[in-house]
Amino acid sequence: MDDEALKALRVRIDAIDDAVLKLVSERAGIAQEVGHAKGGERIYRPEREAQIVRRLRENNPGPLSGDTVERLIREIMSACRAVEEATRVAYLGPAGTFSQQAVAKHFGHAVDALAEADIDACFQAVETGRAHFAVVPVENSTEGAVGRTLDLIVASRLKICSEVMLPVHQSLMRKHGGLAGIQRVYGHAQSLAQCQQWLSRHLPNAERISVVSNSEGARRAAAEPDAATLGSAAAAELYGLEVVEARVEDEASNTTRFLVLGQADAAPSGRDKTSLVMGAKNQPGAVVKLLQPLADAGISMTKLESRPARSGNWEYLFFLVCDGHRLDPKLAAALAEIESRAAFLKILGSYPAASA
Amino acid sequence: MDDEALKALRVRIDAIDDAVLKLVSERAGIAQEVGHAKGGERIYRPEREAQIVRRLRENNPGPLSGDTVERLIREIMSACRAVEEATRVAYLGPAGTFSQQAVAKHFGHAVDALAEADIDACFQAVETGRAHFAVVPVENSTEGAVGRTLDLIVASRLKICSEVMLPVHQSLMRKHGGLAGIQRVYGHAQSLAQCQQWLSRHLPNAERISVVSNSEGARRAAAEPDAATLGSAAAAELYGLEVVEARVEDEASNTTRFLVLGQADAAPSGRDKTSLVMGAKNQPGAVVKLLQPLADAGISMTKLESRPARSGNWEYLFFLVCDGHRLDPKLAAALAEIESRAAFLKILGSYPAASA
Repeated sequence: MDDEALKALRVRIDAIDDAVLKLVSERAGIAQEVGHAKGGERIYRPEREAQIVRRLRENNPGPLSGDTVERLIREIMSACRAVEEATRVAYLGPAGTFSQQAVAKHFGHAVDALAEADIDACFQAVETGRAHFAVVPVENSTEGAVGRTLDLIVASRLKICSEVMLPVHQSLMRKHGGLAGIQRVYGHAQSLAQCQQWLSRHLPNAERISVVSNSEGARRAAAEPDAATLGSAAAAELYGLEVVEARVEDEASNTTRFLVLGQADAAPSGRDKTSLVMGAKNQPGAVVKLLQPLADAGISMTKLESRPARSGNWEYLFFLVCDGHRLDPKLAAALAEIESRAAFLKILGSYPAASA
Repeated sequence: MDDEALKALRVRIDAIDDAVLKLVSERAGIAQEVGHAKGGERIYRPEREAQIVRRLRENNPGPLSGDTVERLIREIMSACRAVEEATRVAYLGPAGTFSQQAVAKHFGHAVDALAEADIDACFQAVETGRAHFAVVPVENSTEGAVGRTLDLIVASRLKICSEVMLPVHQSLMRKHGGLAGIQRVYGHAQSLAQCQQWLSRHLPNAERISVVSNSEGARRAAAEPDAATLGSAAAAELYGLEVVEARVEDEASNTTRFLVLGQADAAPSGRDKTSLVMGAKNQPGAVVKLLQPLADAGISMTKLESRPARSGNWEYLFFLVCDGHRLDPKLAAALAEIESRAAFLKILGSYPAASA
């Protein structure tokens, strides 16, 4: 490519950038107008944003990946929202955690992200109005539910208004060398659980030691030449470790699911999920009886998780995620039927299904 | 605003988003074409990106702020670069630090950001090719230079190819209550220094205790009801502290300056800076003599920082930042003149002046 050709391409890029600036500025102006008209009502509409993301992913002509297109449009929406007032989002800190990544992935960077000390504080932040929304982890695709989030959500008046899916990869790291000579593997209990098949196959004789965090594992592995740790590859850089093997998680699609909690759930977006929790006595057939109305209506359940009840007259709580919005007539009828049968039913919220 | 009007605005937003997607996709395609034509040469061109950011800031019709426009265009450039190969950027970890914020501010989020244990490792990462660029702190507007970066840059063959300015705010935080009863204030030495006037005025009798990091200060303050700590407000959330007073730094514009280091410096962008380091004997007038050619040519110096030399025959090193690009005829002539007078002169790089 000669200089003339390069120059022509740059002129075209400049024209594109000018056009994008003009369009995005107009978009921000419209968002402002909508915000004013609604008398300061929040501009974040989960169902609307989900529809926009979906449409652009479907219309994406390339060469940008669908994920990249989603990130860009979420940043644009984030910027347009912030023209009125920065959205305050509480998350499980400290900064640099997967939870913060989930905030950025969903809300973009034009937000005030508040690092909270624990999941309880995330709930409180929204309940007291200190934050508009909270982003809390609720399950890992290989490891199951985050208990504290489930416990809190039963008692809280907050609603689920979105979900965020974040892929998570585990690496095996040590100070120097390969697999040979590793006597101990450190890791957070959840990381160890996520990699147990891989560890059994490749390091059957190494002791597995659960530590408070993968950072603590990395700190120890840095000081012990015959030890290794699990964790994110970023920790290797930080603690001067070598990555022996990347992506050692048993499931290729190791995803952490987060919930966005707010004062209300989302309006229908066309592709939604509904979360609910039911109380049941420990009687044979009790659960089947409760789930029957969903089966009869042909509604898919994507999650079912039981948990001992911490209070009340029932013995178990069943957390359930099903396809559809609680305002869809079919689901609404099934939920009404369940309610007539259940000792306790609470709809935790309807929200757009995450695109990835 | 009635539903019809709202619907019309949403239709317009959809049209805008479709147009933006089309334009950005075309932009990514052009970037790809340029990348291929150049045979895999790196697509990151600091001078070109600086020009784009400047032009869009100047053309910004609002209501988005100039900073927001800069962030969006940097994300778009980031995404276009990543179509070919993710740019790997080393920074002073851990994740969640100001350095990581500087990486994101300059390179956008479509990069592989590598958290390094110290500034030395950031240099090494680029010298060994493990990273394409490093982002290292070099000075704080109230606290002066980061010594290790200056020491390393003298010996390294890496060049400065960009600068990044990041505003930094300090808060005074404690477990409960206001200013009354605070006996001790913890903080990193740099934070204490940045807030000394404020502390002298408002807490003249409190002991000031320098700790290894503001996180450590927050940890202690959380356990000691008569202590407070300085730090970023994010730490308050994390350690369950209350912000007694926000923005207690003495200079309203408390900014940390970062350098981007790479294999080469930047081509002229039209508004550039040049960094150099000179060696001088400890003789009266030696420095004045060295600086005279710049003064004669009417070239502004924006920084001058002396530092004891760690090796070589000169006694002091002078780090200097002046306006202009080393290829500008006026500056080139002045530099040639300095070189003929100096015991040691090294041009550390010419690079676009940061927009904020």
